[in-house]
Amino acid sequence: MSATHTDEAESGHGDVSVTELRLSEELSGTGGSARSADIAEYAMWLGDDALILSQQLGAWISRAPELEEDVALGNIALDLLGHARSLLHYAGSWDGRSEDDLAYFRDEPEFRSAWLMEQPNGDFAQTIARQLLASVYMFELYRALTSSADATLAAIAEKSVKEVDYHRDHAVQWVLRLAGGTEESRRRIVRAFADLWPYATELFRDEPLIDRLGDVAVRPSSLRAGFDAVVDTVFREAELEIPAGGSSSAGGRRGMHSTPFGHLIAEMQVLARRHPGATW
Amino acid sequence: MSATHTDEAESGHGDVSVTELRLSEELSGTGGSARSADIAEYAMWLGDDALILSQQLGAWISRAPELEEDVALGNIALDLLGHARSLLHYAGSWDGRSEDDLAYFRDEPEFRSAWLMEQPNGDFAQTIARQLLASVYMFELYRALTSSADATLAAIAEKSVKEVDYHRDHAVQWVLRLAGGTEESRRRIVRAFADLWPYATELFRDEPLIDRLGDVAVRPSSLRAGFDAVVDTVFREAELEIPAGGSSSAGGRRGMHSTPFGHLIAEMQVLARRHPGATW
Repeated sequence: MSATHTDEAESGHGDVSVTELRLSEELSGTGGSARSADIAEYAMWLGDDALILSQQLGAWISRAPELEEDVALGNIALDLLGHARSLLHYAGSWDGRSEDDLAYFRDEPEFRSAWLMEQPNGDFAQTIARQLLASVYMFELYRALTSSADATLAAIAEKSVKEVDYHRDHAVQWVLRLAGGTEESRRRIVRAFADLWPYATELFRDEPLIDRLGDVAVRPSSLRAGFDAVVDTVFREAELEIPAGGSSSAGGRRGMHSTPFGHLIAEMQVLARRHPGATW
Repeated sequence: MSATHTDEAESGHGDVSVTELRLSEELSGTGGSARSADIAEYAMWLGDDALILSQQLGAWISRAPELEEDVALGNIALDLLGHARSLLHYAGSWDGRSEDDLAYFRDEPEFRSAWLMEQPNGDFAQTIARQLLASVYMFELYRALTSSADATLAAIAEKSVKEVDYHRDHAVQWVLRLAGGTEESRRRIVRAFADLWPYATELFRDEPLIDRLGDVAVRPSSLRAGFDAVVDTVFREAELEIPAGGSSSAGGRRGMHSTPFGHLIAEMQVLARRHPGATW
């Protein structure tokens, strides 16, 4: 089922309607422009997280271990792309850039996504572990952001939290399935969480921007308790142990990224950059 | 917006529901098993067309020239994957194979997709030209198949034709946009149609199977007039000329495929084959 179906009645083959482009899709919360550079920057942080994670998940289409799972990961990728578009549209409204400008024409140091999102797909267990950490974080974030003093951010959060609730549920089910499956599947999910755990820290770090934004933003540190409560519940159910400490030197919010990131955005940007304006 | 969202109320972070796997998605027309090997074979032809085209389009996620277009192509890929699942599920019901068995554990000569579907993505114009030919064909096919004497095929066609109607509309809009855009975009769409036109022939060839199936199947040759009428309309509007003749030696329905096909299914199958049963 496509989210962008038209409601037109089935037309006979002689009368294809070729009136005008109807490729536009609703962006949520596009009431106005961002009121400050700080708000635009904050929207970019959130938008880049969603964009990079979406790009990574898209690679699973037709490559998951089950067709059903292809569909599920594909849907999650498209949900996240929707969040990214809304957030980047809003971020760009401050200085007149479009969401396409932001996605396709920024260079690596201008991206603000957290390192968790750019961690490689790896095997399926690695993708699922990343999904669990990312979706639990995003759920806590968007739920709190629905009370933002910024009406546009609150509206985007309102829509996104419902979808992220499904993403979180999907990841939880798979963590349980892998942890409770075979010895090999359990070994893989344990290893995946051990690898990814250090990247959680960055998500809850209060950067100076957050102080300046007051009740427009959600304090990342305030989300940690909720995140831990959910992860603890899932891990207990799955009989997994929380990996021992460790935190990465990740600096995504300041434009520092890990090695695979360059390749990742190159793939994303190649077509748009070769043919600016998408009209050749 | 995900097609598989749960309707659950937003839950507090302390009470993640971790009851049972809820990853199943509705397959259309799964009332019973295919009544003959011929019907199963026919369902496989249609299912493989949808599967291969879906796999190809999935590669565009986050790589199209616009974020909006990423979303559109991603949605089309997921629609087609849904059609493929329903059709392959039905095909496999004859001899007890699942749709995953058919997608991931058949070898190249066992795939029945037409050569048009396996033609490379190429540039964006090539993808759009392939989409136009494929979606106009599929629309004509599914519309006629809604009257199939086989109730399951009729039900699958009923659902699919509505979605393919959108795919067709999407392709038409882009053909007009590219043909009426810059000199370069026009040059590219003209070249793409010239390259792909010979592959249309295969879609309308009446193989012996069709005679055996009677009013269960749609005669491919009967769809050509409708296909031509729509394509003529679009080409006239776009001021394009129908490419001069030529027909390929394509033999997809008999399991013969072109060179890139092997790589295409290898990518699709690698994970499932490495870990049969998806449980490691």
